[in-house]
Amino acid sequence: MIQRLIENIKKTGAPIVVGLDPMLSYVPEQVQKKAFEEFGETLEGAAEAIWQFNKAIVDAVWDLIPAVKPQVAMYEQFGVPGMAAYEKTVSYCQEKGLVVIGDIKRGDIGSTSEAYAVGHLGKVQVGSRSWSGFHEDFATVNPYLGSDGVKPFLKVCKEEKKGIFILVKTSNPSSGEFQDQMVDGRPLYELVGEKVAQWGEEVMGDDYSYVGAVVGATYPEMGKVLRRVMPRSYILVPGYGAQGGKGKDLVHFFNEDGLGAIVNSSRGIIAAYRQEQYASYGAENFAEASRQAVLDMAADIRGALEAAK
Amino acid sequence: MIQRLIENIKKTGAPIVVGLDPMLSYVPEQVQKKAFEEFGETLEGAAEAIWQFNKAIVDAVWDLIPAVKPQVAMYEQFGVPGMAAYEKTVSYCQEKGLVVIGDIKRGDIGSTSEAYAVGHLGKVQVGSRSWSGFHEDFATVNPYLGSDGVKPFLKVCKEEKKGIFILVKTSNPSSGEFQDQMVDGRPLYELVGEKVAQWGEEVMGDDYSYVGAVVGATYPEMGKVLRRVMPRSYILVPGYGAQGGKGKDLVHFFNEDGLGAIVNSSRGIIAAYRQEQYASYGAENFAEASRQAVLDMAADIRGALEAAK
Repeated sequence: MIQRLIENIKKTGAPIVVGLDPMLSYVPEQVQKKAFEEFGETLEGAAEAIWQFNKAIVDAVWDLIPAVKPQVAMYEQFGVPGMAAYEKTVSYCQEKGLVVIGDIKRGDIGSTSEAYAVGHLGKVQVGSRSWSGFHEDFATVNPYLGSDGVKPFLKVCKEEKKGIFILVKTSNPSSGEFQDQMVDGRPLYELVGEKVAQWGEEVMGDDYSYVGAVVGATYPEMGKVLRRVMPRSYILVPGYGAQGGKGKDLVHFFNEDGLGAIVNSSRGIIAAYRQEQYASYGAENFAEASRQAVLDMAADIRGALEAAK
Repeated sequence: MIQRLIENIKKTGAPIVVGLDPMLSYVPEQVQKKAFEEFGETLEGAAEAIWQFNKAIVDAVWDLIPAVKPQVAMYEQFGVPGMAAYEKTVSYCQEKGLVVIGDIKRGDIGSTSEAYAVGHLGKVQVGSRSWSGFHEDFATVNPYLGSDGVKPFLKVCKEEKKGIFILVKTSNPSSGEFQDQMVDGRPLYELVGEKVAQWGEEVMGDDYSYVGAVVGATYPEMGKVLRRVMPRSYILVPGYGAQGGKGKDLVHFFNEDGLGAIVNSSRGIIAAYRQEQYASYGAENFAEASRQAVLDMAADIRGALEAAK
């Protein structure tokens, strides 16, 4: 799957990923209204609204991007119907040829992590048959429980040729509270990065590993160090746009081959129509506004990478 | 909710929680067969099997215990139908008067953690109405992302009078890889424990906080230290039984008032009929075997607490 992600990035020339994190407040009035008319102001109604919203955006941007990253929390908040909308979104994006990174941040001890790995990336056995519950292509994983929690994911990645991105240094303001604590002369996130590199060696693609890392765009200096610590890991970079990261902050996340990083934007793309810059599209044309925002983001990052050469 | 948990513990005299972590392999043949006859060897069939299994066990043990802890991964592996079985299990246990601790180990940055908090402990707004997706009473939370990730849970806990248990020192063998790293002269888990105590001050019940901690039974010495670091936090203790923890290892997790800890057993209870000790019950009477295993576990812990007085 890492090979397909890289192929998709080369094909589109855009190392970006659109975060499908549909807060109900981002969904234009007319889309909500239609969904509520059919299903009422219920969890089913909310799930229908976010699904229709996603579908319109994916239809408008799929040819420009290599991958999407649905944030499962935004679906899970709507209970079981929300999880059904999540699965439908994953399927639809895969039909469009997009690589789907499930932003699930799961992580537990051995047998429990195995259940997560199987449910999101692998197959679960039911009697004589096997099924894929949520069937994402990649998943994000929380490392706090250590190797026991990560290894079941590695096993499934090997079997299914899928991948994971492990949280190393997250984009939020208080990420340093534990992640930046100094351990034997280096911050904890660096130790986690070293582990990511080690785990990654067990499941290598051609040039990059199936095991990547999450490092926030909001910490470019740390990105520079982590790039060196994990040379063969893809870095998934959240925090661009709405969280404050800019194209020029991102250059050190990439390797000299122009690969090695993929930058996420969620709100900045899916709620573009609510920004001053794209307001002229109006709520009616929210999906077109998202398309323009993707084009602008890709140009910003391309420009920054060119300038850094 | 912490008050109700404590009341339930006093009423039953059993500071224990039954982990409803139904691997399909634990579910007796006859229960699987019946579910597959109705729904086929599908995700729906698997979900029905684990739901019927749970229901039988809850019916057999509910009067002996204060709380249950369903492990969401075991449901999530069966996709959307699995999540529906999870929700049904939560509802059923609440109808029986049990406190439900959702073992979800979620944690993300601000707005995303808020979605998890709302989906599992709070209410989500849909148009003019509000709904509770999974409506557990407590949830477990991963601290790796820092305060930003925890605070949205605190807000919902305050509003809903619910609670969380934050992962501090987990029960698995490799938990030390990151959690035991020395930071300013003390291990990281102790720093996390100090934070738990701080966060807990913001949401206090009568004697104990709405914010508890997870500390594995497999690390009794660390439990002793953490008990002092977080005097007003309830400790949820996994790792008893199948993972190797014994009653006598647990005494230091409790305060002198005999409260302050609740010990989980999953496999040891729900798959009791597969152990030599309870084999005479047979697979037909799996729920009765679970009832006896609960009685034995409660007696073991009561005995250890008495002996330590």
